[in-house]
Amino acid sequence: MASPVERLADLLVNFGANVQKGQILDVGSGLGKEELTRAIAGSAYKRGAKFVDVHYWDPYLKRERVQHAPEDVLDFVPPWYGERTLQLGEERGATISLSGPIEPHLFDDLDQERLGRDVFPRVKEWTTVINERTVNWCVAPGPSDKWAQLVFPDLEPQAALDKLWEQVVHICRLDEDDPEAAWRERSSVLKGVAQRLTDLRFDAIHFEGPGTNLTVGLLPTSRWIGGGDATIDGIPHMANLPTEEIFTSPDPERTEGIVRATKPLTTQGRIVDGLTVRFEAGRAVQIEAESGAETLRAMVAQDEGGARLGELALVDREGRIGPLDTVFYDTLLDENAASHVALGSAYDAAVGDEDRERLSRSSIHVDFMIGSSEVDVTGITRDGDRIAVLRNATWQI
Amino acid sequence: MASPVERLADLLVNFGANVQKGQILDVGSGLGKEELTRAIAGSAYKRGAKFVDVHYWDPYLKRERVQHAPEDVLDFVPPWYGERTLQLGEERGATISLSGPIEPHLFDDLDQERLGRDVFPRVKEWTTVINERTVNWCVAPGPSDKWAQLVFPDLEPQAALDKLWEQVVHICRLDEDDPEAAWRERSSVLKGVAQRLTDLRFDAIHFEGPGTNLTVGLLPTSRWIGGGDATIDGIPHMANLPTEEIFTSPDPERTEGIVRATKPLTTQGRIVDGLTVRFEAGRAVQIEAESGAETLRAMVAQDEGGARLGELALVDREGRIGPLDTVFYDTLLDENAASHVALGSAYDAAVGDEDRERLSRSSIHVDFMIGSSEVDVTGITRDGDRIAVLRNATWQI
Repeated sequence: MASPVERLADLLVNFGANVQKGQILDVGSGLGKEELTRAIAGSAYKRGAKFVDVHYWDPYLKRERVQHAPEDVLDFVPPWYGERTLQLGEERGATISLSGPIEPHLFDDLDQERLGRDVFPRVKEWTTVINERTVNWCVAPGPSDKWAQLVFPDLEPQAALDKLWEQVVHICRLDEDDPEAAWRERSSVLKGVAQRLTDLRFDAIHFEGPGTNLTVGLLPTSRWIGGGDATIDGIPHMANLPTEEIFTSPDPERTEGIVRATKPLTTQGRIVDGLTVRFEAGRAVQIEAESGAETLRAMVAQDEGGARLGELALVDREGRIGPLDTVFYDTLLDENAASHVALGSAYDAAVGDEDRERLSRSSIHVDFMIGSSEVDVTGITRDGDRIAVLRNATWQI
Repeated sequence: MASPVERLADLLVNFGANVQKGQILDVGSGLGKEELTRAIAGSAYKRGAKFVDVHYWDPYLKRERVQHAPEDVLDFVPPWYGERTLQLGEERGATISLSGPIEPHLFDDLDQERLGRDVFPRVKEWTTVINERTVNWCVAPGPSDKWAQLVFPDLEPQAALDKLWEQVVHICRLDEDDPEAAWRERSSVLKGVAQRLTDLRFDAIHFEGPGTNLTVGLLPTSRWIGGGDATIDGIPHMANLPTEEIFTSPDPERTEGIVRATKPLTTQGRIVDGLTVRFEAGRAVQIEAESGAETLRAMVAQDEGGARLGELALVDREGRIGPLDTVFYDTLLDENAASHVALGSAYDAAVGDEDRERLSRSSIHVDFMIGSSEVDVTGITRDGDRIAVLRNATWQI
């Protein structure tokens, strides 16, 4: 049997990004993820990819930049990064991005305001390409040594890495006889829930639990999406693998109340722990945390949309990540363990044309987890009725 | 005292590429050279660089491509690589490229014809930018583990790496109290020899030694260059560090005879050993070698200029590389140990405007060493007189 690395690579190429013959495949990787990256390249070329364009991210370069770059160029990104991103869309390329921290705590001692201003390697043109749906893309976990040691600090390095791979194999359903079939099945459940929620046409969603009393208003045409995506040319792909969520783009002006994060989040290489955010008229007006608050505040202050919600996502307990009760310190995995919201840019595809102009626009998109079995999720209809959506993290609709 | 890594980084940034405040610095690095790369980034930001744009090359990706990519896309490079290269010139950026093999022998078992067709990460637009002199660039050695073990196979890995660093420190003159002053002194010697050779206006250069009887014709305006460069905006830089050569662009139609390489060369990750090349009317018509001949033949067949000489360079025994008597399996270091020629593209700056159209143009530029203390180098004047240029690798002019 092929190794877990080869099986994950094949799943990402053949099913996740669904790379087509003749496509250019962009791979956003990082140092420490070389073996999986090379397996992805091999798998893609075997499938007929035209070129596999790999970028290895080195977080130490960001450290040098934040420490030493002149103040006025900290947010500069050379124009060719945006242009190649737009070209990848025009050429109808594919993308695989490998998630997972490379060097945890590397940025802890840096000036957090300067760190927050340097958003590279995030390139704002990706938002355009994703909204235009011209690229079949997939974000997936790329296990590495130091990530494993962060998640399993009590294990020896090799045992930690083995354990992380074991969990990734499980949550990516690679332990099924036919992983793609298992994903198609889960996908159809998520699509069903999304359709029922869309049909209910809620005016708002209310979250209530320990430290949380938050109402997120929806737009008249907000629709729920989950279980997979397709490009404008009809190429099906899984934007996230694993994916256990259904999500929509909320009204950026109607979030009210206070919310306590139910898991740490990692952004800009910083772990934000014990986060509480208070919203007024759609804006995050107060951000408190036990660690990393300044980084998040600096990111949110990047632009007008940074303080508004661009995404609202619901996750039930049937997914494979939540039951592991592991904090992965990786947005992709942690966000698919629990319901969550994201500050910053919204997804066009989750609203009708007439509401598109109203969506939150921002250079950032920062997810944080707000769901757990203790948080009740309730839909509020346009008539003010309350309908249970999630209780004990189980669908009620 | 700073570590060798930091001292080399500072020399490359401050003197080699001579990075200016506000410039974008492109760094062509490779896996295994991370520490030096990060030190270069830190040094450049301290000097006021606007952005340090690093690419880590992973030769295993080329291996996957050559093994598995469809036949018709092996020479494809996404358009954004050329465009970013031209933009770097338009923006007046700087470049540092780190040389030295990353994973020797990784390509030995591949189909050599397919390997020869995949020239990435070479991007042909670099030739344009270099000829336009819009970028202050520097190629320098980037020591790494496996390179050290290739050069010093009898030493333990750490001892080999230490020894390679020790030699790099020496040949980069970092063991001098003031390395930049030492380089300015060597540079002025090379500039003096280049000027005297140019003033002699030779019609051809003749090489004669064991297995070699080669005449390389020069163009009427061929001029000799060495000891440093400057951009069109007058920024001085060292295109190679170390540099011990003086070079010119020959007449692509007037090389005749046979030449035996005096050192192995490394191209496309393949070591070409025991090379002999026969030229007729400027073209390499026969290429033989103990290893790697097919790779070189495939490269030369890329285009019309691939079989013609684009460079002729002379090196004396006063340089620091030759006396070490080490084969580095790295063109930068080995070519500065001995006189050499290059197949492929020529340098515009080495001829007058009226001869520019006649130069060799190619997507390749492959140097190989033809000089040693046993090879006599003689200039032939336009009247047919013979004037000794190098005897026992010592300048006679």
